[in-house]
Amino acid sequence: MRLAVIGVGLIGGSFALALKKAGKLSHVVGAGRNRANLDLARERGILDSIAPDAGSAARDADVVLVAAPVAQFPGIFSELKDCKALITDAGSTKRDVVAAARAALGARIGQFVPAHPVAGAEKSGAAAASADLFRARRVVLTPLEENSPATVAKVQALWEACGARITRLEPEEHDAVLAAVSHLPHLLAYALVHDIARRDNAEQLFSYAAGGFRDFTRIASSHPEMWRDICIANRDRLLAELGRYQDKLGGVGRLLQAGDAAGLEKLFAEARQARDQWLKSSS
Amino acid sequence: MRLAVIGVGLIGGSFALALKKAGKLSHVVGAGRNRANLDLARERGILDSIAPDAGSAARDADVVLVAAPVAQFPGIFSELKDCKALITDAGSTKRDVVAAARAALGARIGQFVPAHPVAGAEKSGAAAASADLFRARRVVLTPLEENSPATVAKVQALWEACGARITRLEPEEHDAVLAAVSHLPHLLAYALVHDIARRDNAEQLFSYAAGGFRDFTRIASSHPEMWRDICIANRDRLLAELGRYQDKLGGVGRLLQAGDAAGLEKLFAEARQARDQWLKSSS
Repeated sequence: MRLAVIGVGLIGGSFALALKKAGKLSHVVGAGRNRANLDLARERGILDSIAPDAGSAARDADVVLVAAPVAQFPGIFSELKDCKALITDAGSTKRDVVAAARAALGARIGQFVPAHPVAGAEKSGAAAASADLFRARRVVLTPLEENSPATVAKVQALWEACGARITRLEPEEHDAVLAAVSHLPHLLAYALVHDIARRDNAEQLFSYAAGGFRDFTRIASSHPEMWRDICIANRDRLLAELGRYQDKLGGVGRLLQAGDAAGLEKLFAEARQARDQWLKSSS
Repeated sequence: MRLAVIGVGLIGGSFALALKKAGKLSHVVGAGRNRANLDLARERGILDSIAPDAGSAARDADVVLVAAPVAQFPGIFSELKDCKALITDAGSTKRDVVAAARAALGARIGQFVPAHPVAGAEKSGAAAASADLFRARRVVLTPLEENSPATVAKVQALWEACGARITRLEPEEHDAVLAAVSHLPHLLAYALVHDIARRDNAEQLFSYAAGGFRDFTRIASSHPEMWRDICIANRDRLLAELGRYQDKLGGVGRLLQAGDAAGLEKLFAEARQARDQWLKSSS
């Protein structure tokens, strides 16, 4: 099987490495904007060859993975409009990706099975790619009504060969869920670090930040362009989550203002219990 | 040297273990509210004996460490009012602790050198204590004008024997700095988990939460009573930080509402750069 990877970053590179390790691939060709990154991917054995653009990369491929920041998807899909391969993607938002695919692929839309591997890291680029990134991680498929069951099964089998656990959602539901548990936390972490970094005593403040701050803000080291695109693509859902969270902080602020020790402790205890139960059930 | 530990939790237990490992102690006595925890501390070799209350524990001690949630400090200090030992503490807030000590200790206030080890974990209790908890961690001393240089040096030497790096701040400055880089993030993490836990589709939402969410919310598994006390003790500073953060989120929301992709990317990139620089400088 010949794979074309459009966007050979952490996700695209890891997909290629995982499928190579699983013995599924005879050839991997990559395309992307950053030549140095593509060269690195070739040196690391992620790619066997480099194509000048997505259309050329897809020409002889059996499977194409689109793994670029989501704002690039309309342009990439239009390069893939004559492509006969099976197409899947790794975009963190699904409504916009599906709309872009429909607009560009037209009658070929049935070849595209949207996917989102819920596995990331604050590291990016081919340098960070790993054959084990998706192992035991969740990959959400949001199949289209135009996808045949056989086509969906083929794409599902590829992600499973990477070690992933597959679930399915509607694109709308996917974007609502991810806004709450992924997109909002990223925004919150970026906002906190940015606020502290802009203060006159930023250096002093950072010097007293410890492990709690480090973990809370880990996702603020994520790829800015990728997260810009996610925030814009999922803007309505993210704004709804942000508004909801601001209301929540208003309530917490009122407890604090009132010196309501019992109310604060109850909230903290309920949160801790919910988190601990989640960790137990997900391990 | 005989040590008395009032509150034999993660911090108190780790202090005793670290000083034992350093060969500084001939005897450790503990006091606290939870008998099962004290028994466990004795089984683990953290304590050599258990006293019924803080006053009895301190009677023959050379050094007393107060490591209970900060709302208990007034009661504990009043039990220590006749104590002749050197006293230090591990409270996460300092203005309230110093005020409580002054009120209870009166003319003996010079024996008390306030300290805050900026090293925690979401785990608590003697079960989580470790001789290495403070290794390379920062301990903030907020000495009082009544402390003699020799007294401060003795307390500093104890924390250094635990492997800690010592810095000094005024209590007011300590509470302002920690509100920004520790207390606020805890509040934000608790609020996010609590908000999600209370939704009708909480189980679904948690099931799609991944590594980013897990790290962002790690501190929401912290000890609810300890954090209740910190929030109440440092309420004014924490409210100021919360208000500032709410303003920041308002600004981020406006960027999002306006679809200002460049503005979001700039904010994300600046945050990432600041965080990466912090990690580099602190490693």
